Amino acid sequence: MQISDKIIRRKKNSRIAITSRIRLARNLAGHKFANAASLDEMREILRVCADALGKTKKFKNAAYFNMSEISDFSRELLLEDRAISRELTENTEAKAAFVSKDKRTSAMINEEDHLRIQTMSEGLSLASIWRSINLLDDAIEEHLEFAFSSSYGYLTACPTNVGTGMRASVMLHLPALVMSEQMDKIVRGVNQLGMVVRGANGEGSDSYGSFFQLSNQQTLGISEGDIVKKITRFAKKLSEFEVNARQKLRQENPAVLADKIERARAVLCACRLVDTAEATMCLSHLRMAADMGLFEGGDALIDKLDKLILQIRPSHLQEFFNVFKCSALERDEMRAKFLNKEVSALFGKKKLSK
Amino acid sequence: MQISDKIIRRKKNSRIAITSRIRLARNLAGHKFANAASLDEMREILRVCADALGKTKKFKNAAYFNMSEISDFSRELLLEDRAISRELTENTEAKAAFVSKDKRTSAMINEEDHLRIQTMSEGLSLASIWRSINLLDDAIEEHLEFAFSSSYGYLTACPTNVGTGMRASVMLHLPALVMSEQMDKIVRGVNQLGMVVRGANGEGSDSYGSFFQLSNQQTLGISEGDIVKKITRFAKKLSEFEVNARQKLRQENPAVLADKIERARAVLCACRLVDTAEATMCLSHLRMAADMGLFEGGDALIDKLDKLILQIRPSHLQEFFNVFKCSALERDEMRAKFLNKEVSALFGKKKLSK
Repeated sequence: MQISDKIIRRKKNSRIAITSRIRLARNLAGHKFANAASLDEMREILRVCADALGKTKKFKNAAYFNMSEISDFSRELLLEDRAISRELTENTEAKAAFVSKDKRTSAMINEEDHLRIQTMSEGLSLASIWRSINLLDDAIEEHLEFAFSSSYGYLTACPTNVGTGMRASVMLHLPALVMSEQMDKIVRGVNQLGMVVRGANGEGSDSYGSFFQLSNQQTLGISEGDIVKKITRFAKKLSEFEVNARQKLRQENPAVLADKIERARAVLCACRLVDTAEATMCLSHLRMAADMGLFEGGDALIDKLDKLILQIRPSHLQEFFNVFKCSALERDEMRAKFLNKEVSALFGKKKLSK
Repeated sequence: MQISDKIIRRKKNSRIAITSRIRLARNLAGHKFANAASLDEMREILRVCADALGKTKKFKNAAYFNMSEISDFSRELLLEDRAISRELTENTEAKAAFVSKDKRTSAMINEEDHLRIQTMSEGLSLASIWRSINLLDDAIEEHLEFAFSSSYGYLTACPTNVGTGMRASVMLHLPALVMSEQMDKIVRGVNQLGMVVRGANGEGSDSYGSFFQLSNQQTLGISEGDIVKKITRFAKKLSEFEVNARQKLRQENPAVLADKIERARAVLCACRLVDTAEATMCLSHLRMAADMGLFEGGDALIDKLDKLILQIRPSHLQEFFNVFKCSALERDEMRAKFLNKEVSALFGKKKLSK
């Protein structure tokens, strides 16, 4: 039963959508937005928000990080976990974050808005995330009054977030669409439909190992439920495009496909230096092969690869090796050593099927 | 005895100079240069030259190729062997080539000049090549009258060859100078001294796997013996620079060096597609490692790598597989298969020493 289940999932390539995420932007009524507030007012906002969050079930036992008190290294770890944004790590005065025990839910205080809360989960799961973050939002609202206009909805520091204050996003793994050079066309098409496709590392970043984030642009004049439905529908659409591109690649250019996969394995097993971008790209090719069933191993293999992709991020890698200060070259050497061992163990003897 | 000999050669890195070559440009007195001659006159020149060459000991039993009678494929093989130039393969009418049995000496008729003869040999051997090609030149001159001016020397179609009509060149393997980004400086310096450094494939080509050709620019107002001495001296100088760059790399960036070598081996053993340029670059890195003694195997290993570098050229590879027509992709696939097998056999289990 379980095995045939796995085969069905493999055929459906259900693992193209890796994670889903929703964040809500909120601001306190009666206070200036963070970018206009004095430091004293920001401190007051921090106190009020932290107090309210601490009263919710989700954040009662959560980790609390005062941005100006923790180390650069700790901030980088939170950043790599996507629990906080780059903006929260700059000018750290009167800024803080909560991260829930399961690390799936976090809150930022005095980022662009007074309060931003987010929840993420595996796979394509926006509907269930929406239910859970909506409950959290209600729980927080019991202790705070948010800036809200009956004609516009939630008011935010940047007009692009006014209304729902919601950004729903899905991380998609689209290596075959990248290889067949279809991403530019897709990015343009998605834009015209009021959504955005960005590189995995968020705003302004390039794609990293063919991981892309699909999210809504529109927050005004559309309900939260409709945003969730729209992004879910298009995440499925892009997954289908990716499946088709993989099938086409397999049928029309099997040598090109096999070459990419075999080189990825060879480089990860043999390199002595490798940076995050290249390592992620190689792991991305192996992930695609695993998801296409070209290697035996099924979901467990994909889970292991997803874990490696997270483990090789600079600060997480250094934490693993207990090295809190090192040069980029030394880190690339550690990453190579780590991957040589892990990828050889996972793939060393696996045969690539046709 | 033999082993210690090898160690000494390894330390001297005597294999940086791979081949030496001298060519002489000559034209018949009383005839227009090839670029100005009518087709009838070119045919007459071809007849006279071929007749004279056939009378010399060197070319009596040589292979003779009438350029307009042989196949495109045969022309490509001769080109890859550097027995003829690209120019001789274009507008093939009334053009021909002789190639000696040992393939070291060849002659082109009606290329830029009526007659161009060349000899090549392994290592840094310009002095002995000069003795041998000078004898051949004398032998040909017994049957032909060359255009010669007592004030200028040999007259040639292009003024840059007037005088000795000689180009002496040495093929050098300079990967460490490329890696440490010193080649631009060297190319400029060598130019100022009346010499040229070019990519391995001659005029206009980029460097190919870090193989470079050092040759004289000046042909007028300098004797043949002095050209030979000058190029020999500078080939030794560049070899020294390369040895120093290798030592520096080994001392200062051992991980960078090991990374390049291990990646080269991994790619050649695992790729499913590889073009000539990338394959040559990878073999070049392994050749450097072998020449530095980082792999066991000594001269025999270097000889084998030098042979592989020649075998993977497009037409030679197709000849090996008996495939006389194929797409570039099919050829890249053949090359990958060939190298997977050969490089795995040579390096699969070899450990890289520090």
